Amino acid sequence: MRGTVLYAPFDVRFEEREDPNILEPTDAVIRVAVTCVCGSDLWPYRGLQPIAGPTPMGHEYCGFVEEVGSAVKSIQPGQFVVGSFAASDNTCPHCRYGYPSSCQQREWVSAAQAPLLRVPLADGTLAPAPGVPSEDLFPSLLTCSDVLGTAWFAADAANVKPGATVVVVGDGAVGLLGVLSAKQMGAERIIAMSRHPSRQKLAKEFGATEIVTERGDEGVARIKELTKGVGADSVLECVGTQESMMQAIQSARPGGRVSFVGVPHGVELNGAQLFFSHVHLHGGPAPVRRYLPKLIDLVLNGKINPGKVFDLVLPLEQVAEGYRAMHERRAIKALLRP
Amino acid sequence: MRGTVLYAPFDVRFEEREDPNILEPTDAVIRVAVTCVCGSDLWPYRGLQPIAGPTPMGHEYCGFVEEVGSAVKSIQPGQFVVGSFAASDNTCPHCRYGYPSSCQQREWVSAAQAPLLRVPLADGTLAPAPGVPSEDLFPSLLTCSDVLGTAWFAADAANVKPGATVVVVGDGAVGLLGVLSAKQMGAERIIAMSRHPSRQKLAKEFGATEIVTERGDEGVARIKELTKGVGADSVLECVGTQESMMQAIQSARPGGRVSFVGVPHGVELNGAQLFFSHVHLHGGPAPVRRYLPKLIDLVLNGKINPGKVFDLVLPLEQVAEGYRAMHERRAIKALLRP
Repeated sequence: MRGTVLYAPFDVRFEEREDPNILEPTDAVIRVAVTCVCGSDLWPYRGLQPIAGPTPMGHEYCGFVEEVGSAVKSIQPGQFVVGSFAASDNTCPHCRYGYPSSCQQREWVSAAQAPLLRVPLADGTLAPAPGVPSEDLFPSLLTCSDVLGTAWFAADAANVKPGATVVVVGDGAVGLLGVLSAKQMGAERIIAMSRHPSRQKLAKEFGATEIVTERGDEGVARIKELTKGVGADSVLECVGTQESMMQAIQSARPGGRVSFVGVPHGVELNGAQLFFSHVHLHGGPAPVRRYLPKLIDLVLNGKINPGKVFDLVLPLEQVAEGYRAMHERRAIKALLRP
Repeated sequence: MRGTVLYAPFDVRFEEREDPNILEPTDAVIRVAVTCVCGSDLWPYRGLQPIAGPTPMGHEYCGFVEEVGSAVKSIQPGQFVVGSFAASDNTCPHCRYGYPSSCQQREWVSAAQAPLLRVPLADGTLAPAPGVPSEDLFPSLLTCSDVLGTAWFAADAANVKPGATVVVVGDGAVGLLGVLSAKQMGAERIIAMSRHPSRQKLAKEFGATEIVTERGDEGVARIKELTKGVGADSVLECVGTQESMMQAIQSARPGGRVSFVGVPHGVELNGAQLFFSHVHLHGGPAPVRRYLPKLIDLVLNGKINPGKVFDLVLPLEQVAEGYRAMHERRAIKALLRP
């Protein structure tokens, strides 16, 4: 088969690779139906996160089970499955506590931007859809694997409740789906911070009630103005930079909740500032596996259409263009069809 | 009257000062029954927090209302009251959200190490006891004003629940009362980190089930060992240094809760480290006023005896010795009698 490999910053190749095999009895191999480029793929793509050598890319996937190892019990060949970007056994104390992405046996899934994928710990990582979903739902089902799962965690970790006033920092695909998630959880006001017209439009479609274009201190001042000086109940930080993190913390009311779901790059939080902000802070790699059954259900029942974040669809062999388009912000998120 | 003034590091004077008066119609003046030295008083005492000039000291107090301003409605002369170290109106959005210590009108109480004290926003700051409590309960009632209120917040913010495994970092008076608070909230295991025999003894009396004497990485390793590699559900950080904060975060399980209630001094948190720790973090100046009625009730009903943290009792005029004894860790906490 041919798969996606990052050789160096801006050097993405789609090249011949060995077909994946069952290596452990708990593995599955799946035939990828659709995959995509993640915002977090852009960190190494841009050279902002070092790679050790040529690196197979991709960790968002859904598709049909091709083969399972001898110890796999609940997943069967032929099933349509969605999996988390973090492989987990779903039985260890961390998994049972709701944090499969900190599983004691955690492995990061990689090499999903390919037609075939080995998934470790198949029983604990993959969630089967009932029956074979309609192909037009594949993009939305794919989002459950990471981008929607992560956004859902952002809203959950920020404790979004019915009637809440919510701020979403970041208008990438995670931020936009953070708006969708907050809407699903019953938020009354959802303020999206975005300065890109096409993203503002999608934010509104997903449920944003207000748009703030200002950033940094001006953005915070605008949020305070919109909330009568109080601040937001819940703030979803969906970027991972120092500026976005400070913007999020300062936009929350005392006692409010701030979640952060983008891997922080170069972020340092001052203890005293955090102390006097009085916010709750919670984040980390999203425990996607915990949410998968619920999210798959919402998609299959037509309650949500998160696949709308894909504004560029490419054959997998053009994966390099997907990276370029997202890097240049020409596309929100690129869907890849093997 | 004579009151306590800090002139410079290690220079505490008990000297003639003007009697406090009603300055605002919302003020009260109270005759202080007992007061004490706070761990946070030691930061400026040690020169680790600059002061602008001679500074009246003290913010923990209880006593009898002497006089009230014309706008005070719920507090009456003659009542026995306990107040928070943070004056609050108890009606603004932040107060109603449970965070009176971030009140929009917040003022820090000062000059409580004196026989008479002006308390701003009396209606929102002071909680009256029913009737006149017995004098032997004064020390325990005094703790509600800050040290117990802060420890209670630490346990609450760390979400201590029945059956929980709790770690308390810090064996000062706040840490020790953190043990007491966790016990009240139903914790099953309470691991106190302490290397001082007299403090270990009190921790056990308050409900600690285990003592860990190691610190830093060794302390974390010991906590992991005691929790079968999992980490604690709830960790109370009651110190405020970089080391104690990292020790707390690393002792918690993924998805666990870490509270921090000592004003952080020189603490910087790395965003990526916090992200992958997967903990919840919440802290700040304790919203003591929210807890006062409950804590006063627990004391008056003999359910708790937090006054045991006072292992040194001095006449107020010997306040300088109280600071010295706490600075040298000869005393856990010094009670002062006007």
